[in-house]
Amino acid sequence: MAYELFYWPTIQGRGEFVRLALEEAGAGYVDVARERGGMDRLMKLLKEGAHPSFAPPFLKAGALTIGQTANILLFLGQHHGLAPLDEANGLWTHQLQLTIADLVAEVHDSHHPVSTSRYYEDQKPEAKRRAASFVKERIPKYLGYFERVLGKREWLVGERLTYADLSLFQVVEGLRYAFPRAMGTMAKDYPGLANLRDRVAARPRIAAYLESPRRLPFSEEGIFRHYPELDRS
Amino acid sequence: MAYELFYWPTIQGRGEFVRLALEEAGAGYVDVARERGGMDRLMKLLKEGAHPSFAPPFLKAGALTIGQTANILLFLGQHHGLAPLDEANGLWTHQLQLTIADLVAEVHDSHHPVSTSRYYEDQKPEAKRRAASFVKERIPKYLGYFERVLGKREWLVGERLTYADLSLFQVVEGLRYAFPRAMGTMAKDYPGLANLRDRVAARPRIAAYLESPRRLPFSEEGIFRHYPELDRS
Repeated sequence: MAYELFYWPTIQGRGEFVRLALEEAGAGYVDVARERGGMDRLMKLLKEGAHPSFAPPFLKAGALTIGQTANILLFLGQHHGLAPLDEANGLWTHQLQLTIADLVAEVHDSHHPVSTSRYYEDQKPEAKRRAASFVKERIPKYLGYFERVLGKREWLVGERLTYADLSLFQVVEGLRYAFPRAMGTMAKDYPGLANLRDRVAARPRIAAYLESPRRLPFSEEGIFRHYPELDRS
Repeated sequence: MAYELFYWPTIQGRGEFVRLALEEAGAGYVDVARERGGMDRLMKLLKEGAHPSFAPPFLKAGALTIGQTANILLFLGQHHGLAPLDEANGLWTHQLQLTIADLVAEVHDSHHPVSTSRYYEDQKPEAKRRAASFVKERIPKYLGYFERVLGKREWLVGERLTYADLSLFQVVEGLRYAFPRAMGTMAKDYPGLANLRDRVAARPRIAAYLESPRRLPFSEEGIFRHYPELDRS
């Protein structure tokens, strides 16, 4: 049974965290909205069914429809060996993912601090203030936390890669794209995270995915946007 | 075994979602930071242990230390009958909780759109723009979604109360406190949610909790803050 992923067809966005897990798992999936007519199905499913989502991404898995990125990963982690099956470590993996989700929301708000429904250009002064605080205080706080959690371990949770590692890879990639100056000394500041990023990128299925047309590029339509005026000066 | 809840001692904040679940479950717990010396333990545990949290709340449950509000509720839901045990409905309950968490983060940013580390007074112009958009667009979008999900059912997920219902109660209470003018027509606009709020408040353990000194008041230190200039004019 192939999964059906429903997400905006032109951006990485939050859907990318799900795509990375599906790719690493070698799970068959259709990225529905990227196919002809798929957007109609996405919009239709947002309005109906027993378990409608507030927003994409959502995943159809047989009879199940699962929304919220971290919740989809909770499901995929249990079914595809991307998270430990014991309660303590399963919860720990999910806790890390939810902290990554908080960081992702803050990345988004760094360029949209006033309203999601308005253009960046309409909230540029506010974005400059927010991004300055994000770059100076929040990036070091989050990345410092994950660096400490990683410590000397191979992966965040232990000896096996989990969906949280895949998501952290995506966050590091995204922050480097959006804030190249602020992240310029990353390898020195967060050597563990820089190394983890490289090891995720080198995994055969992830490496193949990143080179395929399935991997959309970062852009100024997504969560991680490169506006030089918001980066560290 | 009594649980130990670690959260800031003077506000409801995100800890309140955990308190409500513990109270409804009739679970024994100590609200550690509200006791003498408890803040020292909270700060110490944030820095050490196998599974440190990025921020409070976190819960000690025997040998487990669990962070992230929605993750704590996932755990309590499974152990105290506050969520269905089958996969489909367990995931659905969690999905609703994560959507509530997104709303809660937006409530916080309505008065802190620039930086968490600065005072409200230092970001008042930005807060006015953000709150205007929050009140006009986001509250109706979120509450409309939950009203549709609830439909004619007794509780969000079905015939039994879940932690998502308790959290939605808290959100409705908080929004009414923070935005009394915008929420003035709530009973007409969202009759199902108004009714759900009343039925949660009337549950014996919740009613006893709300009248006890354990229930902290809403205040301008928490997530839901009443600044008249941010409410609908």
